Amino acid sequence: MKVEVCYSPDFLFQHELEGKIVVVADIFRATSCMVTAFAHGADAIIPVAKIEECKKLQSEGLPAAAERDGMKVEGFDLDNSPFSYMAQAIASKTIAVTTTNGTQAIVKSTNAHEIVIGSFLNINTVAEHLIHSNRDVILLCAGWKGHFNIEDTLFAGALIDILNEKCQIEQDAAWASLTIYQSVKNNMFEFVKKSAHVKRLAKLNIHKDIEFCLTFDKYNVLPIYNNGKIENVKSFATY
Amino acid sequence: MKVEVCYSPDFLFQHELEGKIVVVADIFRATSCMVTAFAHGADAIIPVAKIEECKKLQSEGLPAAAERDGMKVEGFDLDNSPFSYMAQAIASKTIAVTTTNGTQAIVKSTNAHEIVIGSFLNINTVAEHLIHSNRDVILLCAGWKGHFNIEDTLFAGALIDILNEKCQIEQDAAWASLTIYQSVKNNMFEFVKKSAHVKRLAKLNIHKDIEFCLTFDKYNVLPIYNNGKIENVKSFATY
Repeated sequence: MKVEVCYSPDFLFQHELEGKIVVVADIFRATSCMVTAFAHGADAIIPVAKIEECKKLQSEGLPAAAERDGMKVEGFDLDNSPFSYMAQAIASKTIAVTTTNGTQAIVKSTNAHEIVIGSFLNINTVAEHLIHSNRDVILLCAGWKGHFNIEDTLFAGALIDILNEKCQIEQDAAWASLTIYQSVKNNMFEFVKKSAHVKRLAKLNIHKDIEFCLTFDKYNVLPIYNNGKIENVKSFATY
Repeated sequence: MKVEVCYSPDFLFQHELEGKIVVVADIFRATSCMVTAFAHGADAIIPVAKIEECKKLQSEGLPAAAERDGMKVEGFDLDNSPFSYMAQAIASKTIAVTTTNGTQAIVKSTNAHEIVIGSFLNINTVAEHLIHSNRDVILLCAGWKGHFNIEDTLFAGALIDILNEKCQIEQDAAWASLTIYQSVKNNMFEFVKKSAHVKRLAKLNIHKDIEFCLTFDKYNVLPIYNNGKIENVKSFATY
């Protein structure tokens, strides 16, 4: 199983997706929210690239979440904090979601064999699935508006660290992600506080969200995107 | 002075070049060769994107170097080893150069205020120049065929490490480069031996070149690109 890391959906053109599993990570906060939603009983998530598409699905009766630049878009039901996805209101519901980075990454990966939603919250569940599948993997960092970001890179490094000898690294971006993760893993929260994104989000008072999103293995859900929607293959929360 | 890192010329569209200094690094081996050439008396270097352009300059009497995929292109005078640029034959000469990554990075940066040729061999000279100039800086990694690579990232991290408190980091790619560099700086040679590029080049028996290209401050030359050619602002070798 070969593992590559792609630092942004804008760089996906450099990768051959066919036959591979893509793990999409938008740690702050889209994929962390999705994983949390499934752990709390959401039935499905429909990720869409545009706000208008999301609005249309909302008008059809779906709870809808739209985030741009780290903030909830007015008129939508849910924001981009994982704590919003623990409510009874989302259990057994199909949710429409559009975000600045995460949903864009998902919709750009449709040529892959399979698209898995990854986060620290379900990292070992994802790793087990990859080991079981034994296919080549692309860890796709959602980034920030096309740019490299630290938190998604740390997730990629942590996942490679777990896969360890079960995967082959033949790409420098994968080595770099692993090296960064291993060098800061004991103080990840302090490290990401220096990052551009967290500084940007700090104004929105989201340190609680950030600490939550950096928690390993809170849930063992395995959300998979297929035919326009994400569904959970394993659906029980670990607490 | 703000410092950003760009991991590949293909990602340069994400950066605003105007008014900034771009430091181009193609550690293995284009910019290391250029620095070595100036330290040994070369008069100027004309970097061109295409082999045909390089051939034309050769036909006009210039010593010419063309590399593709890590190997010298047949019919040219110089290869891509820094040791080839220590010969008496290049003293006081203008050399035409085209390489897979490095020269492409230079010719894509022409909107910048200034383009500086960086390598470990002249890293402190470059740092001094940046501090003196006090302009915002983009450290442009030449990468490998558009992809992220380790060695150019290590250079970016090492340069930020030298600039230290004299620069501001407001971009995650810069933090990541600094973190990787600091975590492997005591065994850089061992670390880069794992990299995709070195594995590729190992077949060409270039470990001696790689060790040389990772040497700090062998020369205090400062090559600057201007109006189609690179010239040296400081021109004496330190040994």
